[in-house]
Amino acid sequence: MMKKMFLTALCFSLLTASAEAFHRPVTIAGQGSFTAGGTVVTAPGKLDNAKPLDPAGQTLHGDHAYVFYQEPVRAKKLGIVFLHGAGQSGKTWETTPDGRDGFQNIFLEKGYKTYVVDQPRRGRAGQSTTGGTVSNKPMEQLWYDNFRIGLYPDYYPNAQVRWDEKARDEFFRSMTPNTGAFDENVISDAMAAVFEKTGDGILMTHSQGGGPGWWTAIKSPHVKGVVALEPGSGFIFPEGEVPAPMDTTSPFGALKGTAVSLADFEKLTKMPILVVYGDNIPTERTAEWNLDNWRVRLAMARLWVAAVNRHGGDATLPHLPEAGIRGNTHFLMSDKNNEEIADTIEKWMKEKKLAR
Amino acid sequence: MMKKMFLTALCFSLLTASAEAFHRPVTIAGQGSFTAGGTVVTAPGKLDNAKPLDPAGQTLHGDHAYVFYQEPVRAKKLGIVFLHGAGQSGKTWETTPDGRDGFQNIFLEKGYKTYVVDQPRRGRAGQSTTGGTVSNKPMEQLWYDNFRIGLYPDYYPNAQVRWDEKARDEFFRSMTPNTGAFDENVISDAMAAVFEKTGDGILMTHSQGGGPGWWTAIKSPHVKGVVALEPGSGFIFPEGEVPAPMDTTSPFGALKGTAVSLADFEKLTKMPILVVYGDNIPTERTAEWNLDNWRVRLAMARLWVAAVNRHGGDATLPHLPEAGIRGNTHFLMSDKNNEEIADTIEKWMKEKKLAR
Repeated sequence: MMKKMFLTALCFSLLTASAEAFHRPVTIAGQGSFTAGGTVVTAPGKLDNAKPLDPAGQTLHGDHAYVFYQEPVRAKKLGIVFLHGAGQSGKTWETTPDGRDGFQNIFLEKGYKTYVVDQPRRGRAGQSTTGGTVSNKPMEQLWYDNFRIGLYPDYYPNAQVRWDEKARDEFFRSMTPNTGAFDENVISDAMAAVFEKTGDGILMTHSQGGGPGWWTAIKSPHVKGVVALEPGSGFIFPEGEVPAPMDTTSPFGALKGTAVSLADFEKLTKMPILVVYGDNIPTERTAEWNLDNWRVRLAMARLWVAAVNRHGGDATLPHLPEAGIRGNTHFLMSDKNNEEIADTIEKWMKEKKLAR
Repeated sequence: MMKKMFLTALCFSLLTASAEAFHRPVTIAGQGSFTAGGTVVTAPGKLDNAKPLDPAGQTLHGDHAYVFYQEPVRAKKLGIVFLHGAGQSGKTWETTPDGRDGFQNIFLEKGYKTYVVDQPRRGRAGQSTTGGTVSNKPMEQLWYDNFRIGLYPDYYPNAQVRWDEKARDEFFRSMTPNTGAFDENVISDAMAAVFEKTGDGILMTHSQGGGPGWWTAIKSPHVKGVVALEPGSGFIFPEGEVPAPMDTTSPFGALKGTAVSLADFEKLTKMPILVVYGDNIPTERTAEWNLDNWRVRLAMARLWVAAVNRHGGDATLPHLPEAGIRGNTHFLMSDKNNEEIADTIEKWMKEKKLAR
């Protein structure tokens, strides 16, 4: 076994010269894709194979998640399941807009099995039992501003992005629409099914993925830890402990918490949870709607972390500027300093015995 | 260099025990994703960052392709760009419904760079300048039958699939809908942009991907060879040489060829082309619509290959049963004998000096 490890290490170092994206080549034991969860709708009536355009008796499989997985050789036991946010797909975790390694590669190189999800009704998991309409209304500057990159077309002075036109184009093209209604319950059901297939692991969510993420952790005993990057909605509190709605100048409206049973909430106290926010989030109300949007989200997250810990949990909320890490946008995983962010997260994982 | 290769080979063989999907672990020099091509729509008016819900001056980036690429160490010069068919995404080329390696892994293991595409308005490339509606009408048995797996829920006696319920479920969930109008021109423009980024390579298409595939080869000088698996539409002929429409009992209607300029058509004579069809395709008209559908498609493909060769090209059409390879469905790349199919394709690639 030792000999095998030594030779593999030697192999890595010998091959370094041909690396393009990884720091060094990564040897993959297995990779592939699968779907998980979802439902089946069957049209009323009896199937007649001679009448293919008649839906009678025909099925629609929808509302599942799609997962692309990779297992490096000598992988750690706990893999990481990555769930993207609104208007995004698994691409969130792949190559950054400016062409550097994203978290998929960074954590693969650190020795983790990676599971990159497209949530139900998004991306490659597009079949939806609800159907839907896809808008072509131009709204990208709303998102650019809301993601605290800057006020389009500018960048905040300390922003951890400085894109050329090509990278900016790539950033916008990473977005992909819903193909059916967004449904936290449908997503978390499918995510729990993902964890049935992956076994014990760590759930890493981004933004709108945070809400379904809590529900995934409640529904699946295989979630052994949660890393939530800038959750922006779906904060759940025990009945009777929901904070007052938080008013904001953001057009998304007042941020509200949701009541859940104490029994469900307490499941979130059984695992370590890390909630990370980037920079340029004010503490006082401001007319700059895109910043004020995150003021209330960070404030709500602080109350949420306090609630988890009050009930015996282990939740930590680093606001990165307080730790001297400055300029991060909403997309921590693809900012210029994303390797430092990954290291910060892994340090916490090691402390919590998740890096095994 | 030799020493490096020897040690790597040793490394591979030592690590075999931990392989899960690959025959042996594969060492990846770099991997990631990018988008290519597409357009930008800007709403009329002047952007006002304080009014984020007003589209004035805001943009929509759409109609690009999404590509996931992997480069194995010591890769061959020519990579393979994979374009899926109707109702599919890049998942077509990943893990098969019954959990075995698909063409992405098989050709990666053979030493090829792989580029797995989601075409514009599909999967992770969902942003569309047209917008669209996503149907939730149950129609899966139409596709099952049309893909010559059998008459649902049965299998043809010789079919190269024998799925359990889990695999059948996975097959149906591999489908994903359009998020905008299907447009051969939009797709081939984006595919030509993909080849601008990949450089010289081989284009492998499936089914409906065949039509945009010919246009990609016409538009991009980087396409050095084409492998078309069961193209079913989009056959193009020089003006004056378009065959008569072929009537069929299939509900998809008569199959028509399309006229193009001789100059465009002749570009297809500058590279080797392989067109492969599976089994259970009749030669005589039949009331079994799903088989008759492929009778006319294979017949049209034969006329197309003859036209390419008549104009000085190098197109080959193996109908697999004639070569003793029996039972293949429309999804050659994921049938039980997909490694044999891959070997057959690679043998042709070697003959045509594409396996370099």
